[in-house]
Amino acid sequence: MGTVVALAGQVGGAKLADGLYRLRGPDLSVIVNTGDDYQHLGLNFSPDLDTMLYVLAGVANPAAAWEPENETRAGHAMLKKLGGPDRPALGDKSLATALLRTHGLANERRLTEITLDFCRRLGVQARILPMSDDPVRTQVITDNGAVSYQEYFNEMQCGPAVRSMRYDGAADARLSDEVLEALHAPALEAVVICPANPFHVIRPILEVAGLRELLRARGVPVIAVTPIVGGKALKGSAGKMMTELGREPSARGAASEYLRLIDGFIIDRQDFALAESVRSLGMEVAVAQTVMRSPDERVALARAALDFARSIREKKAEEVQ
Amino acid sequence: MGTVVALAGQVGGAKLADGLYRLRGPDLSVIVNTGDDYQHLGLNFSPDLDTMLYVLAGVANPAAAWEPENETRAGHAMLKKLGGPDRPALGDKSLATALLRTHGLANERRLTEITLDFCRRLGVQARILPMSDDPVRTQVITDNGAVSYQEYFNEMQCGPAVRSMRYDGAADARLSDEVLEALHAPALEAVVICPANPFHVIRPILEVAGLRELLRARGVPVIAVTPIVGGKALKGSAGKMMTELGREPSARGAASEYLRLIDGFIIDRQDFALAESVRSLGMEVAVAQTVMRSPDERVALARAALDFARSIREKKAEEVQ
Repeated sequence: MGTVVALAGQVGGAKLADGLYRLRGPDLSVIVNTGDDYQHLGLNFSPDLDTMLYVLAGVANPAAAWEPENETRAGHAMLKKLGGPDRPALGDKSLATALLRTHGLANERRLTEITLDFCRRLGVQARILPMSDDPVRTQVITDNGAVSYQEYFNEMQCGPAVRSMRYDGAADARLSDEVLEALHAPALEAVVICPANPFHVIRPILEVAGLRELLRARGVPVIAVTPIVGGKALKGSAGKMMTELGREPSARGAASEYLRLIDGFIIDRQDFALAESVRSLGMEVAVAQTVMRSPDERVALARAALDFARSIREKKAEEVQ
Repeated sequence: MGTVVALAGQVGGAKLADGLYRLRGPDLSVIVNTGDDYQHLGLNFSPDLDTMLYVLAGVANPAAAWEPENETRAGHAMLKKLGGPDRPALGDKSLATALLRTHGLANERRLTEITLDFCRRLGVQARILPMSDDPVRTQVITDNGAVSYQEYFNEMQCGPAVRSMRYDGAADARLSDEVLEALHAPALEAVVICPANPFHVIRPILEVAGLRELLRARGVPVIAVTPIVGGKALKGSAGKMMTELGREPSARGAASEYLRLIDGFIIDRQDFALAESVRSLGMEVAVAQTVMRSPDERVALARAALDFARSIREKKAEEVQ
């Protein structure tokens, strides 16, 4: 068996990455969105990296995977008493992660090194890799101007219509040696784009200078799993955002976001009727259960994704012969 | 009734300050040692300010007044899991205080403003004032070189003999406007040096450029309460330190540290036999119960201190007439 690279962010992405991890362990590298990283009270928060870390380490809160299980908020209560900000409601353990990250960055360690160190400490054998060590900041453009996704989601509660997205810093961000190593690995057999908001989670990764080109040139199957099931996003604001951006809020709409990048797209069973229409975009299509309600369902979808990639690889090999 | 200024640090100092606060409320200003302030994981800790804040706010842990009651350590457990330092064992609430302080300092607020804001937020009507907004770092000099008190106390557990003390930065530190205002207040009736290690808690305050001279010139009674009872420090390392520094580890030895600064010295009942000997140093002497085991005993000692100061003031007034 070869190695696998996943592109992911947020909870849905972490779930499929977890399925892949349960199948492949140390042979998995996950390139994670850092476009939503932010500073709060002088600390560096990396919500998607933390979610991935906690989920793969098996210590995530099942109801809120972006924080560790049994999270407490004693520090936050004290902060508020002392006049600190009400929101976000910082968890004590989450704060510890941010504190150690911030301290590492202040001591000139790279975000990638810090994250890999966290993986080792929590016994995660997969490699969780920030998409870049350079800062990228995703901006949601509304009629009232540009805001971070954090602000759009938490403070505006996804209210204002999204006019466009901007990925500040992406054009100047460099792929880390660790990301390059994962993508150039001779044994690489598949790249899996996990189910997540295409504009807000996956695009920032793809916008890092050189990544899209590298994926196209690499020659291994790139497949994506739909974040849209039955015309709705499973979680979050993907559906609303797609509509406002003038896209069709469907599996087909999501697939079109990855045109000329992916070889195959996995749609949900509910959407089997869309298969032909997605195939007509110029990609292979597989149908699977994409809603993951249990660890077993994460593994099943991961297996479906890897099987799909293998079938594409075999087909390509046949075509060459 | 006039205003009162206390000089204090650590738990013993905070106890007497609390007694004074219970008597005088907003008419009390406490100038607090910041010579033991330190950075850890990029955060600014001010142990003596925190102790004073928690004690006066009535939220201090009775067994460990340097942290809030019902302190938890969820963040510290996570820090350790992620490879962070074992010690000090950071409390979640204590961390919040340090975090907000650090954030304020990073945003160019003065330590004094931040501390007064904390006072307001926790309903403390007295003014808790850092001895200076400029950094002073007390160094304990042992045969192996200079270390911070934090290091001497926590890591060396007060093992090595103390050869001398150094107050780095004190000569360049400026008295804040708030400290000057408290000491120049027309209604000022007494300055009370609280029971605390003279070398490690009180000297750093007195070493801030201009403070000692101002106290001498101010003309209001300056009285000190012994930190040594029956030849022993009530808490901490004052006795050991005094011996190693060639001082007599007694109330008389402690009094001599304040020669030419104080008008009166309060010794404990147990040491009543030393009264004459201390008086011969050239200061008034009062005898009181200096061990404070309850809020009532804090108030009783505070009252004794203020009564003593009044008697000295009246005596001075008579001498003038």
